[in-house]
Parts: sequence; structure tokens; C-alpha cells
Amino acid sequence: MSLDPVLARIDATLPAALDRLMALLRIPSISTDPAHAADCARAAEWLAADLRAIGFNAAVRPTPGHPMVVGHGGAGRRHLLFYGHYDVQPVDPLSLWSRPPFEPAIEDSPRGRVIRARGASDDKGQLMTFVEACRAWVGVHGTLPARLTMFFEGEEESSSPSLVPFLRENAAELRAELALICDTGLFGDDTPAITTQLRGLLGEEITVTGPDMDLHSGHYGGAAMNPVRVLTRILAALHDADGRVTVPGFYDGVDEIAPALRAQWRGLAFDARAFLGAVGLSLPAGEAGRDVLEMLWSRPTCEFNGISGGYAGEGFKTVLPARASAKVSFRLVSRQDPLRIRESFRAMVRAMVPADCKVAFRSHGASPASHMNTADPAFEGARTALSAEWGRPAAFVGAGGSIPVAGYFQSILGMDSLLTGFGRDDDQIHSPNEKYDVACFHKGIRSWARVLDAISR
Amino acid sequence: MSLDPVLARIDATLPAALDRLMALLRIPSISTDPAHAADCARAAEWLAADLRAIGFNAAVRPTPGHPMVVGHGGAGRRHLLFYGHYDVQPVDPLSLWSRPPFEPAIEDSPRGRVIRARGASDDKGQLMTFVEACRAWVGVHGTLPARLTMFFEGEEESSSPSLVPFLRENAAELRAELALICDTGLFGDDTPAITTQLRGLLGEEITVTGPDMDLHSGHYGGAAMNPVRVLTRILAALHDADGRVTVPGFYDGVDEIAPALRAQWRGLAFDARAFLGAVGLSLPAGEAGRDVLEMLWSRPTCEFNGISGGYAGEGFKTVLPARASAKVSFRLVSRQDPLRIRESFRAMVRAMVPADCKVAFRSHGASPASHMNTADPAFEGARTALSAEWGRPAAFVGAGGSIPVAGYFQSILGMDSLLTGFGRDDDQIHSPNEKYDVACFHKGIRSWARVLDAISR
Repeated sequence: MSLDPVLARIDATLPAALDRLMALLRIPSISTDPAHAADCARAAEWLAADLRAIGFNAAVRPTPGHPMVVGHGGAGRRHLLFYGHYDVQPVDPLSLWSRPPFEPAIEDSPRGRVIRARGASDDKGQLMTFVEACRAWVGVHGTLPARLTMFFEGEEESSSPSLVPFLRENAAELRAELALICDTGLFGDDTPAITTQLRGLLGEEITVTGPDMDLHSGHYGGAAMNPVRVLTRILAALHDADGRVTVPGFYDGVDEIAPALRAQWRGLAFDARAFLGAVGLSLPAGEAGRDVLEMLWSRPTCEFNGISGGYAGEGFKTVLPARASAKVSFRLVSRQDPLRIRESFRAMVRAMVPADCKVAFRSHGASPASHMNTADPAFEGARTALSAEWGRPAAFVGAGGSIPVAGYFQSILGMDSLLTGFGRDDDQIHSPNEKYDVACFHKGIRSWARVLDAISR
Repeated sequence: MSLDPVLARIDATLPAALDRLMALLRIPSISTDPAHAADCARAAEWLAADLRAIGFNAAVRPTPGHPMVVGHGGAGRRHLLFYGHYDVQPVDPLSLWSRPPFEPAIEDSPRGRVIRARGASDDKGQLMTFVEACRAWVGVHGTLPARLTMFFEGEEESSSPSLVPFLRENAAELRAELALICDTGLFGDDTPAITTQLRGLLGEEITVTGPDMDLHSGHYGGAAMNPVRVLTRILAALHDADGRVTVPGFYDGVDEIAPALRAQWRGLAFDARAFLGAVGLSLPAGEAGRDVLEMLWSRPTCEFNGISGGYAGEGFKTVLPARASAKVSFRLVSRQDPLRIRESFRAMVRAMVPADCKVAFRSHGASPASHMNTADPAFEGARTALSAEWGRPAAFVGAGGSIPVAGYFQSILGMDSLLTGFGRDDDQIHSPNEKYDVACFHKGIRSWARVLDAISR
């Protein structure tokens, strides 16, 4: 089956592909907010119907949370599983959006046309690049070049509580030789990249409780312990003056990167000043003496994702609050053990809470880092295919973000993942005004058509 | 004019007095929230009308913010000004209230009947004790025992932005020999108290801005500075290990209390363990080596009244926030200079903000501590009157809360204030389920009738 007519068909049918993506983007499938549960179900139904339209035997599969979508189709020498997620991040602060986040539009920008909407890049737009590549293959040849299992999740942005049980219960059905995942980005503007190592993620929520009720800060201030004071003292103790994380044992299992890979990374056209400058910063915040790329791809972190306590509205309230909370996440690398770090973190926090205050913890996921076996010839095949589409050599890179599913595919299904994607650094995923470049969507579809061809031979 | 028939009339008309208080409590006059501006105006109109009903020449007086109420009435040897505030604190978290905060009711409690509503104690119930005492005097004798100026404010819970200009513009009209203020409490359950020293208050809001936008904590975490990290480091540095405030020069002008007053305070039946135990705490949070009463009345503090940044909703969001804010207040004593401390605080904060982050400050008031001249015979007269009503010796005490108006009366009008009030420690002012004991309301009215009699002779 030849590739060229598939690529030609992709070019000719791009407007219809964009229309389909816009329809999916109109569904506000925010998984972390229970108010949007029906929207998540609607997005799953939409995807299952679309897969059936191109010949997959596809169905929405219930879970205790938001549903999965599973589809089977094609035939060939290789069996591949494609994974993407149809859920999206919350949209607050809404006031910073230039348009309603679930009323997508194609806008002109100084750097070309963009699709503007929550989820345009993360991950609906990326997910649809693969679906559209399949549609083109089927449209031209009547079938797919490989045996394909499609697997879409709806809880990726909310810690994937149903994922592990679902993988375990359906392991025989879902197991393939290799997973393809489209949830990463280009390196720089136009260098295609295959992510071969990903940081893990440990998410913790701490709530410190002091007095039984909110108090008047004049009547009790000075004598009654303030939970914001306890919490800020704890958070401030989590980094030392050199930017290292102070949780005991935190760096156990953190490997230095191999010299060859370090050399490859140093060869990439990465401008740390421009990377930080693009978001209004200039001083690397990580461990002293480390490259910025190293901080992002191969060093662990401790971040504060949210904090709240007392009166945060307009004006002033002289309250001594009863409680204060923080959401804390750790990005993990190499062989760091999320569960051991969680215990060590909690013990450290408990030791800093005064005897008459209380602390409660809530877990928001714990997944280790992932490293892929790049000796599988699919990696070299995909690298060649991507290089051909983008006109420059594709790179093996690391990723600062966590894609826990890649770890679960390894531990539960015994398969590695080939992660490639077409997002750009300025896509503002997880932020207001998320966008996906039309060019990335188009070339992304073409890229997957080529990768399918290369891997299936 | 004799006192006894006035007290008898107060006893006989208590139900009507309670009805009037309930009417005032139904008006949700939350001054800090612009959505309640009309309610504040309504409360002012209600009070002016009530004063006119008992013979005062009273009017609502506009300001750039919420209006004042000023009334003149009575005649006699002395000219007194009575001050109270008709605005109330916000009610959040609403879910912790046992009944709607602006639908007052009289409830039975294990310790007697209580009036339950926002403002029942602070300050509508207290304010009305004085109004009702005047009503009884007028009802029995047709006039008041002294020349009285009534002065009610509607911005006490939101930093009183209009107070100083109004006092300056109307100084000649408002100046009296002594102010009476009813916004404090009993000592313990039943010891009447005259507050002769009050802490001042400096309110500051800090906002730290890092990146230009919220970032994905995976894609930027480790390299980009997190404003929550900057803010928590600053807040954690504001107290040392002994609970002392670390702002340079903070303790300049802090006097040790006089030995005689210290002896009087030590003689009060104050149980620090019970005081903290009542709100679920046990360990004094202030400076090591100080008594709890000293921490509350004569030592300065730094409190965190609110903190916010990033995602604080349900679930988890792997965001690296663009900004984080905290509301910080300092209780001031003796001769501490609020403006010097503000500058020192801001300089300390600025020095802790990384060069590529920004910090902005917003002022929420700056008032020094107040000390009254207890040599004025009105103080001894009031002490005798209160002792008679409550059946135990009234005490001169300090107050941890700030009543900035007492300081402004000194600095702008040149008059001291006699502060007494009938709140109890468990009134939960500024908290959900605020209440005022019916017994305190009743004996409070009787107390003012006696104090007016004693001071006017």
C-alpha cells in the first residue's frame, strides 16, 4: 500500500478534518470538575462514533469515573495501540481568555493560523492527528497498514483514577507490541521529537487545621497558632538555598544522565534565556549548577500548584483562619520511588506541625518516571518518517511533564511507548488562550500517516 | 433625675428592644463587599430614623464610601459622643452557619438565650445597648442626662476609608469631652471591663508575580520560579523560632507594661489553658516567655489573614501559577509607628523577591495603638456604675483587637474614649454562627443607663 496517495488525501481533506476537531472542542470535557461529567461522556460517545465511521469496532466503556473509548481495526504484521485523552484542564481564570474556551475558532496569528480553544493542543487536537491519519489510510486503501487498537481516556487531567483498574481488567484486549502516544510536542518550533524519558509525578494535598473555627485576629492573634503560618513554614522548608528539595531521601535513585545523551541534548538548539524569556522570567529556579534542559528533563522538582487559606476576596478581613491548604507536586526521574517519597514527605510535614494543630493528606497520584527501550526498530523507523515530513532530523528527547500512562503500559501491559506529538511551546496548554497551530495539526496527520507506514513494513 | 425608673423601664420594654435589634440585623450591611452598598445605606437610614424617634436631631451623612449617621440630643453638664458601627463582617464560609446569617432568631442555648445573626454582637447588638438606654431615659424623664452626639460608622469592618476625612471635615460638630465606644467585651463571663489600651493595626496585601501566565508544572517546573514558593519563603521568614516578628525595627517603641498594671492583669481570673482550649488549641503561639494575656494585650503580632495562588478547587491541576497573594496584618502596641513598620516590612519583602519576579503592595490601613488617660473621673464613675450592675468589680483591661477610631478621636478631635462593651469570648464575631447573649444585651442597656447617670452628675 503506497503512502503518497494517503498524504495527498490528507492535504485535500484538511478543512473537513478541522471541522471535526472543532466539533470535539465544543464539548467542555473538564474531567476534574464533577459538573462536567455528562460532557466527558458526550466526548467519549463522539469519539466512539467517529471511530466506527472509519471502520473500527469501537465502543464507550464505562468506568467508575469517566468512560474509556476502545476500538479495534486494521490488520497487518504489527499490532499497535494508540493512546490519547479526550478530557481537558479547567479554564479558570476565565477572564484571561480572549474568547470563550469552548467556542473554538481558527484565528490568524503573526505566526500563522491557530485553532483557539481549551484542549486544542492538549490533547484533542493531538489525538485527532492520529484518527485523521487512520481515516486517510482507510479512505485511500480501504484498510489500515497495521492491526490497531485505539484507546482514549477521559481522566488524564484528573490523576487517572480509573486507568490502572481498567488496564488490569482488560489487559488481554489492550496488550499490543508497542504503544503510540500523541501528547508531547515538537522540539523548538519545527524539530520533530520522540520522547524517550518522562518524569513521574507525585501529587499531594496538605491541609493544616489549627483552631476549631475562624478567629478574630485581634482577639486571638499572638496567642493562637495560625495554620497559614504553619503551612508557609512547611512549604518554605521544602527547598534549600541551592534549589534542592529537602525531603529526606528525595534524591535516592536519581541517576546522572548518560554522557552520550547529555552530548545529544547539549547539541540541541535550546536557548535557555529565550525559553524563560518567553514567559517573562530570566533566572533558572532549579538546582544550582544544572542546565535548564537538565532541570526540565532529568532532575526532580517540588512545585506548589495551589495554596489557600483565610480570606482571599476583595478588601481585608481580620480573620485568623481555622485551616490552610496547599497542593504540592513532585516531578520524579530515573528510579525515584513515588511511594517512598510520599512517606518521607508526609513524615517531614508531620514533624513540622505543632502538637495542637492537625494535618491531613490527600493523594493525587503517584507514578514513577518512564524510560523507553530505543533499540526497538520502530523508534528508528519513526525517527526517519518524522525527519522526512518535517525536513529536519528528528531528535530523541526527554520530557518534563508526566505521562503516567506510559509507565502503566510498561508495568501492566509490558509494552513500551513511542511518544511523539506536534505541540509547540507557546500552545499555552493548562493556561488561558490554549491554541494548536493549524500547520501542526496538518503536518501531525501527515506525520502519523508516515509513521504508520514505516512501523508497519 | 433618678435612675431607678429608667432601669425598670428597660426591664419592662426588653421584648420591644429585641424586636428593634432583629430588624437591624436583617439588613446585610457587609461593608467590604460592594454588592452590599445599598444594604449599608439602608442600615444607616434605619438608625437615623430610630434616633429621630427618640428625639435626636439625626441624619444620614454621605461619604465617598458608606454613609455616617450623626445625631444630636440631650443637654447637661457634660458633652459626650457615642460611637458604634452598623456594618458587619462577610459571612463566608456560609456552609458553616447553622441558620442564614441575616435571618436573626433568638435561640435557646445551654448557657441561656442568644440572638444568632451576623452582627448580633459586632457591633449592631452592642450599638443598640446604648440607643436603648437613651430611649429609656427619654421615655421616663423626657430628656437625656447629658448633651449627647451620636456617631455611627458603616466602614469599620473595611478599614474605615472615609472616617478620617469625615472627622477632619466635621471636627467642630463632633468634638466632645469624652467618647463612649461600645465595641468591646466583658472580661471572662461576667466581669465588666473598661478597655484602656488597644492594639493598633497595619494591614498589608502582598502580590508576587512570576511568569507572565500560568504554566504547566511539567513543562516548566524546575526551571521557572513559582510565585507560591517565593511568597511562602517570605511569610515563613516573618517569625523567628521564638515567635518574634523579624521585620527590622519592629520592636522599636514597644514598652514593657507598667508593674502596677501587670500586677492587676495577673490578678484577673484568666485561664490561658481554657482560653486556648475553647478554640481547640493548647500551645501559646506568641513570643516565648510571655504570658498569654500579655501576648494578646501588650505585645505586637504578625498574622496571615489570607493566602491564595494557583488552583485551589476540587481535584488537582498541575499548574505553575503566575501569581500568589497574601493578606498580612500586624497588631501594634505602645509607640510602634505603623508607617515606619510598613516601610521596613516592604523593604524586607522586596529584598526576598528574585530579580525576575515582581511584588506589589496594597495598603489596608495603618493605625497606632491607643492608651487612655484614666485620670479623667469619668473612668472611675463608669467603673463604679458597671460594678453595681454586674455585681462584681469592673476592671481596666487591654484589648488585642484594634479600634482605630479611638486613636483618631485622640489625634483629630483631642478626646479620649471610654470603651466598654458586653460581648463574650464565645460570641464568634467574624466567624460563622455569631451570637449575642440576650442577658448581655439586657444588662448592657442597663449598664449604659447607669454609666450615663454616673458620668453626668
